[in-house]
Amino acid sequence: VTVTQKRGGGGTGAGNGLRILKFGTTDPTDVSASARLVANGYNPEDLVAVVGKTEGNGCVNDFSRTLASVAWRDIAPAGTVTIMSGGTEGVLSPHVTLVVRQRDGEERSGLVGGASETADIPKWEIGRRGQVNAVAQAVSIAMRDADLTVAQVHLVLVKCPLLTSEDVAACISQGEQPVVTDTYESMAKSRAASALGVALALGECASNEIDDALIGGAPQWSSVASISSGAELDNCHILVIGADEAGGQLRMAHAVMADALDYAAVRSLLDIVEKDRGEVVQVFAKAEADPTGRVRGYRHTMLTDSDLQSTRHARAAVAGLIAGVVGDPAIYVSGGAENQGPAGGGPIAVVYSVGASSGGSHAAR
Amino acid sequence: VTVTQKRGGGGTGAGNGLRILKFGTTDPTDVSASARLVANGYNPEDLVAVVGKTEGNGCVNDFSRTLASVAWRDIAPAGTVTIMSGGTEGVLSPHVTLVVRQRDGEERSGLVGGASETADIPKWEIGRRGQVNAVAQAVSIAMRDADLTVAQVHLVLVKCPLLTSEDVAACISQGEQPVVTDTYESMAKSRAASALGVALALGECASNEIDDALIGGAPQWSSVASISSGAELDNCHILVIGADEAGGQLRMAHAVMADALDYAAVRSLLDIVEKDRGEVVQVFAKAEADPTGRVRGYRHTMLTDSDLQSTRHARAAVAGLIAGVVGDPAIYVSGGAENQGPAGGGPIAVVYSVGASSGGSHAAR
Amino acid sequence: VTVTQKRGGGGTGAGNGLRILKFGTTDPTDVSASARLVANGYNPEDLVAVVGKTEGNGCVNDFSRTLASVAWRDIAPAGTVTIMSGGTEGVLSPHVTLVVRQRDGEERSGLVGGASETADIPKWEIGRRGQVNAVAQAVSIAMRDADLTVAQVHLVLVKCPLLTSEDVAACISQGEQPVVTDTYESMAKSRAASALGVALALGECASNEIDDALIGGAPQWSSVASISSGAELDNCHILVIGADEAGGQLRMAHAVMADALDYAAVRSLLDIVEKDRGEVVQVFAKAEADPTGRVRGYRHTMLTDSDLQSTRHARAAVAGLIAGVVGDPAIYVSGGAENQGPAGGGPIAVVYSVGASSGGSHAAR
Amino acid sequence: VTVTQKRGGGGTGAGNGLRILKFGTTDPTDVSASARLVANGYNPEDLVAVVGKTEGNGCVNDFSRTLASVAWRDIAPAGTVTIMSGGTEGVLSPHVTLVVRQRDGEERSGLVGGASETADIPKWEIGRRGQVNAVAQAVSIAMRDADLTVAQVHLVLVKCPLLTSEDVAACISQGEQPVVTDTYESMAKSRAASALGVALALGECASNEIDDALIGGAPQWSSVASISSGAELDNCHILVIGADEAGGQLRMAHAVMADALDYAAVRSLLDIVEKDRGEVVQVFAKAEADPTGRVRGYRHTMLTDSDLQSTRHARAAVAGLIAGVVGDPAIYVSGGAENQGPAGGGPIAVVYSVGASSGGSHAAR
Repeated sequence: VTVTQKRGGGGTGAGNGLRILKFGTTDPTDVSASARLVANGYNPEDLVAVVGKTEGNGCVNDFSRTLASVAWRDIAPAGTVTIMSGGTEGVLSPHVTLVVRQRDGEERSGLVGGASETADIPKWEIGRRGQVNAVAQAVSIAMRDADLTVAQVHLVLVKCPLLTSEDVAACISQGEQPVVTDTYESMAKSRAASALGVALALGECASNEIDDALIGGAPQWSSVASISSGAELDNCHILVIGADEAGGQLRMAHAVMADALDYAAVRSLLDIVEKDRGEVVQVFAKAEADPTGRVRGYRHTMLTDSDLQSTRHARAAVAGLIAGVVGDPAIYVSGGAENQGPAGGGPIAVVYSVGASSGGSHAAR
Repeated sequence: VTVTQKRGGGGTGAGNGLRILKFGTTDPTDVSASARLVANGYNPEDLVAVVGKTEGNGCVNDFSRTLASVAWRDIAPAGTVTIMSGGTEGVLSPHVTLVVRQRDGEERSGLVGGASETADIPKWEIGRRGQVNAVAQAVSIAMRDADLTVAQVHLVLVKCPLLTSEDVAACISQGEQPVVTDTYESMAKSRAASALGVALALGECASNEIDDALIGGAPQWSSVASISSGAELDNCHILVIGADEAGGQLRMAHAVMADALDYAAVRSLLDIVEKDRGEVVQVFAKAEADPTGRVRGYRHTMLTDSDLQSTRHARAAVAGLIAGVVGDPAIYVSGGAENQGPAGGGPIAVVYSVGASSGGSHAAR
Repeated sequence: VTVTQKRGGGGTGAGNGLRILKFGTTDPTDVSASARLVANGYNPEDLVAVVGKTEGNGCVNDFSRTLASVAWRDIAPAGTVTIMSGGTEGVLSPHVTLVVRQRDGEERSGLVGGASETADIPKWEIGRRGQVNAVAQAVSIAMRDADLTVAQVHLVLVKCPLLTSEDVAACISQGEQPVVTDTYESMAKSRAASALGVALALGECASNEIDDALIGGAPQWSSVASISSGAELDNCHILVIGADEAGGQLRMAHAVMADALDYAAVRSLLDIVEKDRGEVVQVFAKAEADPTGRVRGYRHTMLTDSDLQSTRHARAAVAGLIAGVVGDPAIYVSGGAENQGPAGGGPIAVVYSVGASSGGSHAAR
Repeated sequence: VTVTQKRGGGGTGAGNGLRILKFGTTDPTDVSASARLVANGYNPEDLVAVVGKTEGNGCVNDFSRTLASVAWRDIAPAGTVTIMSGGTEGVLSPHVTLVVRQRDGEERSGLVGGASETADIPKWEIGRRGQVNAVAQAVSIAMRDADLTVAQVHLVLVKCPLLTSEDVAACISQGEQPVVTDTYESMAKSRAASALGVALALGECASNEIDDALIGGAPQWSSVASISSGAELDNCHILVIGADEAGGQLRMAHAVMADALDYAAVRSLLDIVEKDRGEVVQVFAKAEADPTGRVRGYRHTMLTDSDLQSTRHARAAVAGLIAGVVGDPAIYVSGGAENQGPAGGGPIAVVYSVGASSGGSHAAR
């Protein structure tokens, strides 16, 4: 199955950078951040991506993601990548992170990046090689647009589709077998394929390792991929962010949390920020229930709780840790870290500003 | 309504101390910790209290608490206080903390304490002054048994009843109005009354401030109370723990988390432990969703999530923070901190050991 | 507090009737029913109301309602009443019921009705007398527009607002006490006030009985009110439907279910339909957990299940009964029947067609 | 893998019958039914089986089942089969159905039956052929004990184990692959294998069709199997009930619901009861969400609701229908009907009494 590339929102291109602005939302329809964008010297046409945490369950029937996507569709220019991650369990605070392209002539921010989209993923390719390849291509295009090398990349955000009951039935009626028939499980399969696509594009795994990894073989993972699946789209939206070699006021660092208790990884990033006398703008992290049923040898119950999906448990716990340590609950913590960091852990990236004030960029309250 | 005092399990009395041993459980019926108690030189007759985290929802229909209580009833001597707190959301690991009375002649541990029980609380007194007074009396008795002054007390754990639909109907049929008819809300009312009972016994509030506090007036709170409500009992079980003035290998410290993000409070306790070159044995903390709908000015969604009770959200988040920072998920974090610490926050206490190894006391894995 | 009346979508007026068309939806954004409306000889300008069952939890954080409302806002003319009821538990099938005004010259359908809206309800009036009065006025206006007498009315659908955490905080900051601070409970209070408004307009209770009923005094209820609350609006939307005295192809009947097991009430309506050799077009029913904790003397657990709100339980059960007996799962069953029918029960209304085929009017599959 | 047969509680043997007594419970620990047994002329020694509906979620972490099993373990004689089915959604009322062996010399009731147990099922055999065979053998033994032919059998109740996270990890550490790693899904796999065991024992499918059926091939199902899985046991408990050829006061009839809306099937059984001028004693039914995502062509949302497991949805809806039509909410409706009736449907059986009063046998209120 061929998955052709759809041209996305583009990236910083040569000579420009990205700025990151973060604003709280009152509900999923709240697009008042667009007005605050203007107050910060940008306008909606500058948007490369809108990355949000919305207050649904983050699972199959999370319509808060769709509602936010629909609301921003009226504001953002065509081609803008929208990555709405559902689930603000515990202390997490709903917000949007606006990623804007700097204007020509602006002092470069220090961050560069690119956005792209794949074509629609046929439902039977979700969680399979076709999705892996499509994401890998889209990541490569976004990197090329932004003139980014692998070493510069700190974060690859992907939003990808899932399978509803209707999708499963449609596959079967067309003589195709979906990768899985459980709709919640399809989210994990889609995240896994997308993450392997990122890993492939970044050289974190080899092409001949993919098929085995897709069926749960030898673990392959990306240390910068952050994948979220949802019913609000049929293709994959990709945002790659990295450090401008020329430096600037905005900087990034990333690490990998080995497990959901990995305070040391969080601390290591804050140490970098503090050493640079910086101020945290945004944190992006992935969380998951350790699939062995244990964390550091202790039994957890996230996989036997039939009242509450494990992704909700994991998001609440890991966000509780990071938000507390950083002192900011308006962070991007997403659940389900298949092939994103080691099993039970996940990548974590921080954007921070140094020097002059970051000007409203993290006024998410 | 008079609530008479029922004689509880007693305390350390003069000349003895308490030891704290912590063991993981495989499920709520798992009482293998009693065998491990023996391996540590104690036996079930030495039990003053069994304090557990069980893996239910921690709400009205959490039968994991009852199941654990029933299982320990066959093991522990009559009068042993059982405080089973449901809810091991996120990284929390189910376990039991066994509190044993040291034998005559043992070197004193450094901790002293007492356990007591109230008589059954009439259902219409739940959440009302009758419960406040009963708990206050029981706390005083436990303190007296252990020869503890207010200044020595670091933690008062209470397990108290709630109202089921049957209880509500029974009240009404008897011509009494229950404090509230919503069963989940009755848990909060019962915790509030118990906490005010602790505050009263410890002089943290005055008797004439109680009535107003019960109806949501001027906030009165205890900085050492940790209250859990449940359907598994009809009276209140109380455990008071404090520091032996003579010192010893086990020590305690406590603080108050101002909100669910209060990493600094956690850090302050660990600083004390580290200064003493100690090792954490157990942490006891309370968590709740800030009733204003905001934490540090940021909107949270714990009070508008009709799929998941706010106590579950809060437990997951605060436990995620503490467990990560301490590096131990087998800690006691309980949800619903009404009148326990300031609104949105809650007390946190740590037991730690210094000097020689603490033996098997925290082998909760 | 004065609540002024906002002009609604109007009604059938003199000389025209209403038609009811029902179509299944693939998700909350699905407005393909508007195209099927055209295929049935109407167009969006003819819409008086869009009444939907959407697939959220039907509680505070049900964004499926908002998403559907937003989607129809682009299709339906200004003033169209939208009543989106969340929650399709069990066999319930998501669908929209389109209520259209017949064109001049069409043979009158047999149904008449009117739609209206109140002004925005101040948050502190939700669940209070101000809301009751506003709804009562709006019902009267809708009836007058449709030239309906009380005896002709079979159904009054109302959509009304609720209190979010933000609303509660806003009330308090403005020195006003909200009727309740629990957001889920605010839905019940809003439904109760709206139902009493309907009862008042229809003469089912007297004005001087309202205040007592609002605080849980002597039960007052409407036998035709069907109220749903939600976060997607700030005012109340009202739709009144009744029988045209001139008769026609469409007919209605209504009854009151005494409890959630009241098969006899369902049967009585079907008997009427069968006697007329009619075909059921749509059923509208309300469901709730009996507040005593018992149904026909048997204990139920809907009020002690902290994992699942009682409105979800009740909707699933009552819809299971009606859908099975009628043989159609695309029916309108809404949860929370405060002051709508007796405690534990609720009104049920059926629209049916006689004579010639009803066209595409119930092609909800 | 050999699964040896463990001797169960036995059956009616030659010359005796079974009686069915039903009593409501106040909570899972309520064994007051044993006293009511005595009041009805039996005592706990006469128990063949205790079949209960308990008020948990009916899923992996339903400890209400375990709590009830533990409570009855102290009352019932060794070998008594306990089948506790969790989940009393909607109108379902928690209760126990006590199945007692008639005394020598009593007039035979009209029902005969047998109970048996398998040996513990190795965790890696759950959902696989080993479990199928073990259940098939146990069913045959129970039938032989009761001298029952296939044609006489109306109901085969089975309680079987599931996989917890610990079980999954234990399998893997022993080099065995569990049938599935998702704990909730393991319940379905275990039910499927047990149902196929029943079908095999009753000749409803052939041995060489089993392997294909286990992997989702051609559908094979039993029309009398009712299977419930749970964490409270490691082996399978079986109860077979059928009609005594000699007739008697108690009678049975069974049918198959083609889908969750199959009112006609319920009606057909009641028609039999009414024709015999009988009185319903108990109904046993299975419910499931149609795996195609549609019921009678209408979309349902039970498989895309990540907040609520589909078994809970299905139980609420089907129980709502049956309880309403029968007028009794203390019925046994269990969720998850894999290989029990056709996809989306399930078997339904009724026990009824004719002639003299059934003497307290359905006083479940």
